[in-house]
Amino acid sequence: MHKKLLLTSLFLGGALLTYGQDEKLDMATIQKIREEGLQHSQVMETAFYLTDVNGPRLQGPGFTKAANWAKNKLTSWGLQNSRLESWGEWGKGWQVEQCYLAMTAPYYKTIIAVPRAWSGSTGKLQAADILYISASDTTALENYRSQLKNKVILLDQSFDKITPTFKADATRYTDEALQKMASEAPNPQSGRDTTYRSMIQAMRTRNAFNQKMRKLAKQEGALGILNTTQNSVDGTLFVSGDYANASLGSTPDDLADLAIAVEDYLTLCRLMKAGVPVKLELNVKTKFYTDDIKGYNVLAEIPGTDPKLKDEVVMLGAHFDSWHAATGATDNAAGSSVMMEAVRILKTIGAKPRRTIRIALWSGEEQGLHGSKNYVNNHLVDAATQKLNKEGDNIAAYFNVDNGTGKIRGVYLQENQAVGSIFSQWLKPFNDLGATTVTPRNTGGTDHLSFDRVGLAGFQFIQDPIEYGSRTHHTNMDTYDHLQPDDLKQAATVVASFVYNAAMRDQKLPRKTAVAQAAR
Amino acid sequence: MHKKLLLTSLFLGGALLTYGQDEKLDMATIQKIREEGLQHSQVMETAFYLTDVNGPRLQGPGFTKAANWAKNKLTSWGLQNSRLESWGEWGKGWQVEQCYLAMTAPYYKTIIAVPRAWSGSTGKLQAADILYISASDTTALENYRSQLKNKVILLDQSFDKITPTFKADATRYTDEALQKMASEAPNPQSGRDTTYRSMIQAMRTRNAFNQKMRKLAKQEGALGILNTTQNSVDGTLFVSGDYANASLGSTPDDLADLAIAVEDYLTLCRLMKAGVPVKLELNVKTKFYTDDIKGYNVLAEIPGTDPKLKDEVVMLGAHFDSWHAATGATDNAAGSSVMMEAVRILKTIGAKPRRTIRIALWSGEEQGLHGSKNYVNNHLVDAATQKLNKEGDNIAAYFNVDNGTGKIRGVYLQENQAVGSIFSQWLKPFNDLGATTVTPRNTGGTDHLSFDRVGLAGFQFIQDPIEYGSRTHHTNMDTYDHLQPDDLKQAATVVASFVYNAAMRDQKLPRKTAVAQAAR
Repeated sequence: MHKKLLLTSLFLGGALLTYGQDEKLDMATIQKIREEGLQHSQVMETAFYLTDVNGPRLQGPGFTKAANWAKNKLTSWGLQNSRLESWGEWGKGWQVEQCYLAMTAPYYKTIIAVPRAWSGSTGKLQAADILYISASDTTALENYRSQLKNKVILLDQSFDKITPTFKADATRYTDEALQKMASEAPNPQSGRDTTYRSMIQAMRTRNAFNQKMRKLAKQEGALGILNTTQNSVDGTLFVSGDYANASLGSTPDDLADLAIAVEDYLTLCRLMKAGVPVKLELNVKTKFYTDDIKGYNVLAEIPGTDPKLKDEVVMLGAHFDSWHAATGATDNAAGSSVMMEAVRILKTIGAKPRRTIRIALWSGEEQGLHGSKNYVNNHLVDAATQKLNKEGDNIAAYFNVDNGTGKIRGVYLQENQAVGSIFSQWLKPFNDLGATTVTPRNTGGTDHLSFDRVGLAGFQFIQDPIEYGSRTHHTNMDTYDHLQPDDLKQAATVVASFVYNAAMRDQKLPRKTAVAQAAR
Repeated sequence: MHKKLLLTSLFLGGALLTYGQDEKLDMATIQKIREEGLQHSQVMETAFYLTDVNGPRLQGPGFTKAANWAKNKLTSWGLQNSRLESWGEWGKGWQVEQCYLAMTAPYYKTIIAVPRAWSGSTGKLQAADILYISASDTTALENYRSQLKNKVILLDQSFDKITPTFKADATRYTDEALQKMASEAPNPQSGRDTTYRSMIQAMRTRNAFNQKMRKLAKQEGALGILNTTQNSVDGTLFVSGDYANASLGSTPDDLADLAIAVEDYLTLCRLMKAGVPVKLELNVKTKFYTDDIKGYNVLAEIPGTDPKLKDEVVMLGAHFDSWHAATGATDNAAGSSVMMEAVRILKTIGAKPRRTIRIALWSGEEQGLHGSKNYVNNHLVDAATQKLNKEGDNIAAYFNVDNGTGKIRGVYLQENQAVGSIFSQWLKPFNDLGATTVTPRNTGGTDHLSFDRVGLAGFQFIQDPIEYGSRTHHTNMDTYDHLQPDDLKQAATVVASFVYNAAMRDQKLPRKTAVAQAAR
């Protein structure tokens, strides 16, 4: 049964225009999607495997194991041609085999520590003194050269205190916040450009200093280097790593590169400044993998059934890789589980999409959207012109989930305002589940950008933040227990419906060029 | 200069009564206290030594080192007769010498772990399997007897999930909350008694089960036991220990008794339930101390100068001991530093109190107010009758700080309503610093109760909670960085003034028996 929905409105550059036409929605199928997605969900079983059972999914054995499991799981659900597809050379795999750090004087305390990605090893349990470096420029750094041997480096920070949070760790969007997003101009972020640029500049200066220091540390035989961030409080550590160290040219080094809790870090700094003798002991073992340096995406399809449309493809994707300090539950086992659940729902209810539906689980997103970017380059554009080729032009839409565990509250138009009315209508059957908002705004930082960049209709959903920024995004606390089951069930249900609608629609979703036409 | 303050009002049993008489306040001295306390504070230096430099202050070397430092510091500030005074037999000292726990299969992950107080050791780095115990009564426990050898015990919990916090970790009292406290009847907690009693009952049942399990585990040669709490989230672990294990009768055992992060705990539970093979490795070394099993308080005086009043004593105190997972910064280096700072301020400004002022830094508070309770028993009451003796009758007041790092917002009358008007007037010079509220309410859980119990005028201040309940109270995050410098300066300033007022007043502070007279 098709049910017609009312015309909706769209804000365009701040001005309210009436736009759009009726979307024919297959409400019977949408009802089945809701029932399967909300009442018979398997999204948490999928997430359990990806996180608790599999562990981190950084390039290396962790990613490979999980990717093969996903490939087989998709096959078991009846998807076609489930496969790992290489997108090119990635670099060295890496994982942690042991990590222990403690202060042994002036008293004993185990320090919460996680090796940064592609950290080296200490080889064995080592006792060590600290070298406290207060230099802030690379010239002054040279003065420490002769003191580095067998030391653990502690670098003076630009901050010397932390502040308690009088804001909740977990939040949901209020109605007011969503209304504001809906009425914002496409790119309200532009006012922040100056701040952003100066932040980026400061980061580059800091990175240059850190690279110099690491080089010096390795040359002179330092044992390790400690790192922290001002928000690594309460035992929650923000940890990533230097992708440069994954390149084949770099040699596995013997410098242990450790992220530690900010409270421990500042304690060490204060003791060193006060001249109190401090001793450490540490044992760090990591392993580099060069047996297969290729990067892989997981891909699988539900073939289209309409002879005229089945060559066209609706894609849904999420990055499958994670950082390594925990099990990447909200970033992004959540999105991966939601996307897998969405296609499971469609297969389970026996949906017969007119277009082909393709799920993509990307790799290397954390290091620069490598999986999705290379997929687009390898398949969808002409290498010389970067214009869409035939296969690219056949992409009807791309949907991405990568904003944590929160339920879907709406969708970012990514400045593609021609889809505003369409998405408003598609959200209507899920308004009761809190999914209401269409915002003209851009959102960045993840794989829909690889599609958006070449002019394809690529979208990321608005999700409730929950603890994403405060506790889970790139932290040692990004674990299964921080996933919200009801939110993920809702998200999978909404995504399944969006994907189904896009696969059934007479036309592909309008691309950005359509905006100008619409505004005329 | 004395400045007369206006008469204030006092709520008594919910009814507003006019009560009290003018307090003569030495505003010149109070101004000096403010200046020294707010402009030239040393409270953070004191706290730095007690926490970062000294480490945990559980019975054993940690407490002893800090207590001797405090004794000497008080002497250096000009206090008289600074001393460690034994209050009797405490039990075995204990501290951690090494702690490492990791999951090694299905993948490697260091687990955030802290030995519970008086935990035993593993002797060396050991690999171990988990024994997952789902029994909930002591009879069913017997079935596991034969499987305990060399195992690490993981006990099924009554909860299987955690929930994100939509409330802020850090809070301050709002004006509304303070007004409510001020107008509450003396004992508004009584309505909670049923819940409280059932909670205590559940805790006793659980403790009995745990004791049985530990006994069995030791008999059968288990290697360790894992513990968690539902609020041990985000890397913040709530850790205490069994005081029973400190008694001389108990033998140091070889069972490692570890508190771990709830996310790690629940991951292990889910993996065991799903039949996924899990391996651990652990290395725990703890040390018991029996060279000196006595408990000590630190005491020191500023002698009174009025020949008629100098035998009377105004006491201020805070417990000096801490749990061991961190450095007991907010519980209770904060209170100890505030009290030390208060007497430092008074000495520095050259205050000449009419009565003697005595600071007491207690031990064994966490295990049952041992230090203060025994001080009262040893000095202030007749052993047979438990009535105040001459020395006890000379105690003009006792002030305590033990509610974390937050600034003082007022004071609990502890049902001693005769002091309401007095304290309201004493708070007036600090109203601008947020200290405004006198509540008839009781507050419990710390050392003022030892004085209150024998009829002395003993008080605890109302302090802003900041992160006390959420992040620092008995946790591995109770560190220097969670102290709030401005709050502690304010607290020391208010306390110094209260103590000075009590030492200068013509009469001792009224005791609870005075309430009846006042109401007449």
